[in-house]
Amino acid sequence: MRISKLIPKTRRQAAEGLSGAHALLVRAGYIRQVERGLFVLAPLGFRVWRKLQDIIFAEMERDGVLNVNLPIIQPKELWDKTGRWDRYQASKTMLTTRNPNTGREFGLAPTAEEVVTWLAALEVQSYQDLPVIFHQIGWKFRAETRPHGGLLRGVEFDMSDAYSFDVDEAGMRKSFELFRTLYTRIFSRVGLRRCIAVQADSGAIGGKGSAEFMAISEEVGEDVLITCAACNYGANLERATSRYPRPEYSVPKVGRRGEHTPGTRTVVELEGLFKAEGITADRMVKTIVLTVTKGAETYNVAVCIRGDLEINLVKVRNALGADEVAAAEAETVREVTGAEVGFAGPLGLVEHGQVRDILFDQSTQGMTNFLCGLNETDYHALDVNFGSDELPVPTSFHDLHQTKAGHQCPECEAKLTESHGIEVGHIFMLQTGYAQKMGAQFRDAGGKMQDIWMGCYGIGVTRLLQTVVEQSRDKDGIIWPESIAPYQVIIVPVNAADTVQMNAAKALYRNFQENGVQVMLDDRDLRGGQKFADADLLGIPLRITVGRKASEGVVEFRRRSDGTVEEVPTSEAHMHYLGLLAK
Amino acid sequence: MRISKLIPKTRRQAAEGLSGAHALLVRAGYIRQVERGLFVLAPLGFRVWRKLQDIIFAEMERDGVLNVNLPIIQPKELWDKTGRWDRYQASKTMLTTRNPNTGREFGLAPTAEEVVTWLAALEVQSYQDLPVIFHQIGWKFRAETRPHGGLLRGVEFDMSDAYSFDVDEAGMRKSFELFRTLYTRIFSRVGLRRCIAVQADSGAIGGKGSAEFMAISEEVGEDVLITCAACNYGANLERATSRYPRPEYSVPKVGRRGEHTPGTRTVVELEGLFKAEGITADRMVKTIVLTVTKGAETYNVAVCIRGDLEINLVKVRNALGADEVAAAEAETVREVTGAEVGFAGPLGLVEHGQVRDILFDQSTQGMTNFLCGLNETDYHALDVNFGSDELPVPTSFHDLHQTKAGHQCPECEAKLTESHGIEVGHIFMLQTGYAQKMGAQFRDAGGKMQDIWMGCYGIGVTRLLQTVVEQSRDKDGIIWPESIAPYQVIIVPVNAADTVQMNAAKALYRNFQENGVQVMLDDRDLRGGQKFADADLLGIPLRITVGRKASEGVVEFRRRSDGTVEEVPTSEAHMHYLGLLAK
Repeated sequence: MRISKLIPKTRRQAAEGLSGAHALLVRAGYIRQVERGLFVLAPLGFRVWRKLQDIIFAEMERDGVLNVNLPIIQPKELWDKTGRWDRYQASKTMLTTRNPNTGREFGLAPTAEEVVTWLAALEVQSYQDLPVIFHQIGWKFRAETRPHGGLLRGVEFDMSDAYSFDVDEAGMRKSFELFRTLYTRIFSRVGLRRCIAVQADSGAIGGKGSAEFMAISEEVGEDVLITCAACNYGANLERATSRYPRPEYSVPKVGRRGEHTPGTRTVVELEGLFKAEGITADRMVKTIVLTVTKGAETYNVAVCIRGDLEINLVKVRNALGADEVAAAEAETVREVTGAEVGFAGPLGLVEHGQVRDILFDQSTQGMTNFLCGLNETDYHALDVNFGSDELPVPTSFHDLHQTKAGHQCPECEAKLTESHGIEVGHIFMLQTGYAQKMGAQFRDAGGKMQDIWMGCYGIGVTRLLQTVVEQSRDKDGIIWPESIAPYQVIIVPVNAADTVQMNAAKALYRNFQENGVQVMLDDRDLRGGQKFADADLLGIPLRITVGRKASEGVVEFRRRSDGTVEEVPTSEAHMHYLGLLAK
Repeated sequence: MRISKLIPKTRRQAAEGLSGAHALLVRAGYIRQVERGLFVLAPLGFRVWRKLQDIIFAEMERDGVLNVNLPIIQPKELWDKTGRWDRYQASKTMLTTRNPNTGREFGLAPTAEEVVTWLAALEVQSYQDLPVIFHQIGWKFRAETRPHGGLLRGVEFDMSDAYSFDVDEAGMRKSFELFRTLYTRIFSRVGLRRCIAVQADSGAIGGKGSAEFMAISEEVGEDVLITCAACNYGANLERATSRYPRPEYSVPKVGRRGEHTPGTRTVVELEGLFKAEGITADRMVKTIVLTVTKGAETYNVAVCIRGDLEINLVKVRNALGADEVAAAEAETVREVTGAEVGFAGPLGLVEHGQVRDILFDQSTQGMTNFLCGLNETDYHALDVNFGSDELPVPTSFHDLHQTKAGHQCPECEAKLTESHGIEVGHIFMLQTGYAQKMGAQFRDAGGKMQDIWMGCYGIGVTRLLQTVVEQSRDKDGIIWPESIAPYQVIIVPVNAADTVQMNAAKALYRNFQENGVQVMLDDRDLRGGQKFADADLLGIPLRITVGRKASEGVVEFRRRSDGTVEEVPTSEAHMHYLGLLAK
């Protein structure tokens, strides 16, 4: 590729408001925006995209996954079978179209569970046909209200979606685990630097059990992640757990006592008040009253947690199987505890009749002689212990705490950090829901018809393209991983007016081309500095500079990733390049 | 690929009503129909499709065409600029969709002139940026009233579409000719056996000048073509021309005479009547009265053609620049000629005042002493010649005859045959129409803004897939060309219960795989005959049969294309295969 023939050309500036990888992809001419959420993949973007696809298809094939292609427009009748037509209409997330001649209605694929389950229902007969996994890469559509972030959230986006079909739950789990490995391999091969599989909710796809693959990105990531640099542990903030320092708790004293603590409501205030006694926050139990919605029902619960920790409402919601959980209103707290806000405690709280249950966080397990509210305005209790009539030993402790940067990794105890991530993949265990609704059954070894167990798996391909750049760039531009770089080498003659340099550059270009190297030649009549800046912006892994020493038969190799340079005899350039690749 | 793991499986029969390549693709499991016009590309179909794409992208790149990807859904505003939104709505050929959240309307790409011209308007600044050609392969949509023929006419179909941008007409023509060569190369590389570029009308795309690439298919082709087996000449029936035997015409006699020919109206009847005089049809001039519609105007013309030829109404229409041309009603003929039908002739016809003009077919040029009607019931004229007051020498002769099988090729004079073709590609010169409407201009060398000259070029990719099979099959199944076969080799152990055979087959399979050969293993526990039948149906170029002689270290190579077989030592199988490829 001669850069003089390349359109679009690079730009000095991206449009107002763009930043990070999105801005670089625009400036370097990889993408152009038709309107928010709709993009042209320009020649360089196209090459990266096609390479991503090739890698994904190849890795799928390697694991015996069957690559196919499913239609983009899918008949409403199929969506009606699972009830998703109406649901997508209600949520206004699916684009639809209607053939004006036949009147037939279609959805523009947001995913393809319906059509692929239809295919399985048609083609799978017996248990001997299973397991089978179909995979495609195709354009998907979502009626975004506010598309943003370039390729991260488009109305039209390319997606790799796979669907597994198994005879039973164990099979489904095996396929699910296969994809965990497969996705890890894919993300590694395309050059994501940090990508973590975390537990996640299944959301609109349904089914039980799912994991998200999150690429770390502080600047752009919309999801908060807790990660461990030491062992690679990572989780969605909603799901993350952690260890934290635990003081030595003393032998339980007999008999708790009440203390007058006028106007002292917060943990910090209490620490001040009891400084002399050394009652630090980790020797207190905080009690929070919550209002729970579950179906048509609304009720209150309390959560007890160690004084220096916060509660994670998503974990509470999941522990209760509730639809919604929120901090109770002050008035509710007063009703529930019989005291002003700031004096709630577990002692006799359930018996008081206004909270249905108390959930104890794991942090309270094993605490002795702790401080807590007394459900009486201006009073707290000291030397409280589990095991009394007013506070029996809880039957269970839950993981309800909010993990924070600085906590310890649950796996290796190193310090956790908070990060932001971009979701690049999501894998789901779907169970038998889709199969039941669409009649996808198989004959088991005993001749009995059974529902097929499914899983589904997705990678946002265009999103992945931008995410790789998000992780792999510097102030000068993109730094492509070898595997998906649009070209491997860019040859830059410093002075276009110098025929020795230009001839040497052209000869090298032809030589590399003939040897099958994907190579660019910057044949533009520009200053060397401008060409260097563009080479950095484009992110080609290796720049070969043909400068003054060309007359001595020497060129310079410069690696984009780390800026290392070395002089190489022009005649050995291709061999030297092969040597670099072998390293 | 182990066939036991492949889904869909082969079928004995395609559904009722399917035939040819469509039926074979369904039976062999390459495609599945979701509904008329909507298809799943199953694993084998996917592989062929992706190879077609790879070949097209590579050939484009080889000629400096820039591969890109354009969005499928395209904003109505772009289509409004060219007026095609309303036109496509009126013709009910475009599918559309609307974002329920933003209210924005989009067309589902039938082609992409609008969006690519928008891109050129955005990115092309000066004459130095031109020429540039963008190419993509993407799914297109057409609101078919009656989708049919499998992949030949779908609602959703994959299309390779390219768009050239040039500074002037000469540049546009050069790009157009580039695509003529490029398409010929592509069609040859993917294994179309007979494919002909013919002149064609531009239709709904607009512009002037276009050519269609027609793949010959007697069974399925919906277009009639005239072709020459000797020199590869070919043309659409509407455009075809030909030579035909020409008798020796004698020296013109002076003075024509009238003959009483009661009730003798047709060429055949006249030949009978004048048998003794030897006046054969090729010595007669037939005169046909036609009614012409052009804009709001309607008028009559006459066409004179040699007695043994027929007129081609499309050629007459094009010669007149008319909207419509049809044979005149009998009453009109009587008014125009003053005689009953069957006695029309050119003598004094225009002077009679009822036909505006007489068009003479080239076949009449140089005829002497011919017979024609006398515009008097029951009379014909003999020994008529051009150059009299009543029949001046025509100022021009036109190509108006209908070419027929049996005529001679206009280029090599061999006999022409009539064929049927499938349109697989279409290339257009668009001129500057789109650029004008969308403001796609460039600054010329003198600094003046000028409209860009465009061309557009399309290949139906999924259609091409089926067309290759249409041309490359026999009663047993598909015969894939090497270049796009889903797999190159299929290994068939004859007796699955024979461990020697199975082990040899598996070892060969692994050996071929390790050497990067795309290979299938028929590991199913079926009778040998069934497996052979499936291998033929699937159309894999080389079958390696592992039978009784496996125990002697010998397998059989069988070429699908011609059925030739040869025994090969098992240990040399891969080397022998490489040898075959090199041939």
